[in-house]
Amino acid sequence: MEQTTYFEDYEIGASRKTSGRTITETDFVVHAGHTGDFFPHHMDAEFMKATPFGQRIAHGTLVFSVGVGLTASVINPVAFSYGYDRLRFIKPVFIGDTIHTRTTIAAKEDDPKRAGSGRLIERIEVVNQHGEVVLAADHIYIVERRTKPA
Amino acid sequence: MEQTTYFEDYEIGASRKTSGRTITETDFVVHAGHTGDFFPHHMDAEFMKATPFGQRIAHGTLVFSVGVGLTASVINPVAFSYGYDRLRFIKPVFIGDTIHTRTTIAAKEDDPKRAGSGRLIERIEVVNQHGEVVLAADHIYIVERRTKPA
Amino acid sequence: MEQTTYFEDYEIGASRKTSGRTITETDFVVHAGHTGDFFPHHMDAEFMKATPFGQRIAHGTLVFSVGVGLTASVINPVAFSYGYDRLRFIKPVFIGDTIHTRTTIAAKEDDPKRAGSGRLIERIEVVNQHGEVVLAADHIYIVERRTKPA
Amino acid sequence: MEQTTYFEDYEIGASRKTSGRTITETDFVVHAGHTGDFFPHHMDAEFMKATPFGQRIAHGTLVFSVGVGLTASVINPVAFSYGYDRLRFIKPVFIGDTIHTRTTIAAKEDDPKRAGSGRLIERIEVVNQHGEVVLAADHIYIVERRTKPA
Amino acid sequence: MEQTTYFEDYEIGASRKTSGRTITETDFVVHAGHTGDFFPHHMDAEFMKATPFGQRIAHGTLVFSVGVGLTASVINPVAFSYGYDRLRFIKPVFIGDTIHTRTTIAAKEDDPKRAGSGRLIERIEVVNQHGEVVLAADHIYIVERRTKPA
Amino acid sequence: MEQTTYFEDYEIGASRKTSGRTITETDFVVHAGHTGDFFPHHMDAEFMKATPFGQRIAHGTLVFSVGVGLTASVINPVAFSYGYDRLRFIKPVFIGDTIHTRTTIAAKEDDPKRAGSGRLIERIEVVNQHGEVVLAADHIYIVERRTKPA
Repeated sequence: MEQTTYFEDYEIGASRKTSGRTITETDFVVHAGHTGDFFPHHMDAEFMKATPFGQRIAHGTLVFSVGVGLTASVINPVAFSYGYDRLRFIKPVFIGDTIHTRTTIAAKEDDPKRAGSGRLIERIEVVNQHGEVVLAADHIYIVERRTKPA
Repeated sequence: MEQTTYFEDYEIGASRKTSGRTITETDFVVHAGHTGDFFPHHMDAEFMKATPFGQRIAHGTLVFSVGVGLTASVINPVAFSYGYDRLRFIKPVFIGDTIHTRTTIAAKEDDPKRAGSGRLIERIEVVNQHGEVVLAADHIYIVERRTKPA
Repeated sequence: MEQTTYFEDYEIGASRKTSGRTITETDFVVHAGHTGDFFPHHMDAEFMKATPFGQRIAHGTLVFSVGVGLTASVINPVAFSYGYDRLRFIKPVFIGDTIHTRTTIAAKEDDPKRAGSGRLIERIEVVNQHGEVVLAADHIYIVERRTKPA
Repeated sequence: MEQTTYFEDYEIGASRKTSGRTITETDFVVHAGHTGDFFPHHMDAEFMKATPFGQRIAHGTLVFSVGVGLTASVINPVAFSYGYDRLRFIKPVFIGDTIHTRTTIAAKEDDPKRAGSGRLIERIEVVNQHGEVVLAADHIYIVERRTKPA
Repeated sequence: MEQTTYFEDYEIGASRKTSGRTITETDFVVHAGHTGDFFPHHMDAEFMKATPFGQRIAHGTLVFSVGVGLTASVINPVAFSYGYDRLRFIKPVFIGDTIHTRTTIAAKEDDPKRAGSGRLIERIEVVNQHGEVVLAADHIYIVERRTKPA
Repeated sequence: MEQTTYFEDYEIGASRKTSGRTITETDFVVHAGHTGDFFPHHMDAEFMKATPFGQRIAHGTLVFSVGVGLTASVINPVAFSYGYDRLRFIKPVFIGDTIHTRTTIAAKEDDPKRAGSGRLIERIEVVNQHGEVVLAADHIYIVERRTKPA
């Protein structure tokens, strides 16, 4: 679905919660196969039994990719993704955990390079079934202004 | 492969280059299916013909996940990944591009929370076959010190 | 995204067009691997050179599954899928074709088994980049009435 | 395997049972990733705990695609698939269920468009490990006649 | 499909040819992700340009697994696979090559460990679209005798 | 990682142990989908309940491909894989087993076809979490000599 939203229309503090997704053993195997990262932390149940985690933990890039993917429901044709700041892996995600993502408009800034656009700081929090934030990041989203400067 | 390297042993400026990997249409389809992000930028060749890119472009999370995955060759059992700063999507990655990753030790800092460890800032650059950096990020890596403070 | 729509709110003739998706060789291979149907029509380029098609053609179930999947953007919590009538494979889909799906409310009927719901006949048409309908079907969708009979 | 069977050679009432296949959580994840349908009914174990099903249920298109795929063991070079009528999702399929498919020749009709062929109505029933039919459909199969009309 | 064939019923020299399958870039990516072998020979098109092959070549285990998989059409419930001798990677398989497998009963031997069974040596040859054998192996198949020794 | 090792540098008896990997239900499903082998031994939990195994067993080609894949960590640019002898499926691998691979240099021979290289016989043993060898094979590895014969 496509919906145009201009920089002016985003309100600081506005928040959105995605649908949930159970992270399966399949997701672990697919992510390892996709990235080539077969470290035993993600792939070797025997090895992990002897660690404080007691079991395999998800790749950080898995939680990030799926957490961001959950937000991909509406296309804004006047915006693009610039990058992320302060991406943090806060808690482990285990096989069988169910995550969703909460996004909050945290700040609006001028874009130093593009007068016709603004920078939106969108706080991304991936949350598990216990309500714990497992991953956080600040998404930098460049959005066109409805009213371009003269 | 496992190899223990302590905080003291990392040298600022030390650099490593991974092997390369051609990003295929399969990787695009796998990443969409893995994350649920089927935006036309990645999946609709007709739609993209009408854009300045002229063709489908890789998901940012794909380039990040595969770029980081390429570095996953040696396990350091006295280190763990804390997060990333300044993750930037610099240039598009197209089907058929071949990327590798260059990592450089950029800085060493005390870890404010863990006296027995230090924070390593590892500069990650994903580079395409033209030598262009397509993605950059600062990896924060927490590594144990050989000599723990008394 | 979730949005409640009752039977009374659907209007005959209302139509919706999904975003597009390029059907890749990967989709052929994934579908064969998912279903176990490795017939040479889908998997053997040499065999197909000698047929009127001249190349591999997509599984009917692939076009149906992806065509229906493209419509899965908004969850209606007061509705469920009952089945399909008149599912027809009209034209072949080749590797590299880009399809989208058009849905049209074609009819509204009482549900003989559920007085509190109605049957919606939703016409599904999967359309390629040349504007040709490649697959059609009538989706039977059972939707609750806002006003339940006494 | 290829085996030529003409329209005349099919007998009404003839029935065939395929081998079985356990539907795994992997199949759910693969089907979501293949079709882009990540609805919580299939992907969110927490959400489904609160429903009468109590757990995730398979996509209708998954059961259909795999159920039909199970029948794809012998190629008949003088036949092709025209479509399906009365496709019905009768019972849910859960992770761990084992299904097989039973096909029965239900009817033989003239093909109104092709004098040299006939229309076979093949009843498809996908059956679970409890002997319950979970999906049914009438497959319309166009088969050449051995004796073409003059 | 299941079909019982006893040791006595196999004839030396009997040969079977499977249907064909085009080996796609997807198969390369899937095999790398499945096995964790991302060596540049299979994954890095730029690297391979500078080699005598000029392009990526399939993993030996890919050609073996798919070549053997092509023969898996009929289950013999009185037989099992013991292993393989003289598995040889004879020619490279490139993306887009179409392979099929030819099996020939090469020898019949007593099974030194099982008086009630015999050892069948089945010659496996994977053949490309140019008629060249790309992989060969001797499959050792243990098959029950119809007439067990007293 | 790339590391040049000449024929002279390999020592008979030298042994290496890879990291471990838990074989998941996902691996079974991926391997079936990759190879087209959907035999009930690997895919039908109900069918296998009635056998001495009591559960699904991994494809022989799965254990071989993953077992060999685990060894693919260091590229030797002066060597290539010639084939395998005495590949044996010794014990079944079940869903949830964790395997690793042990390689041992078993023999060094002249290469009858290439005076400048030698043949290394590398014993491959895939070992499960109980320390049992589940698969064994002799890998034939052709490696260049540092000192080529005059």
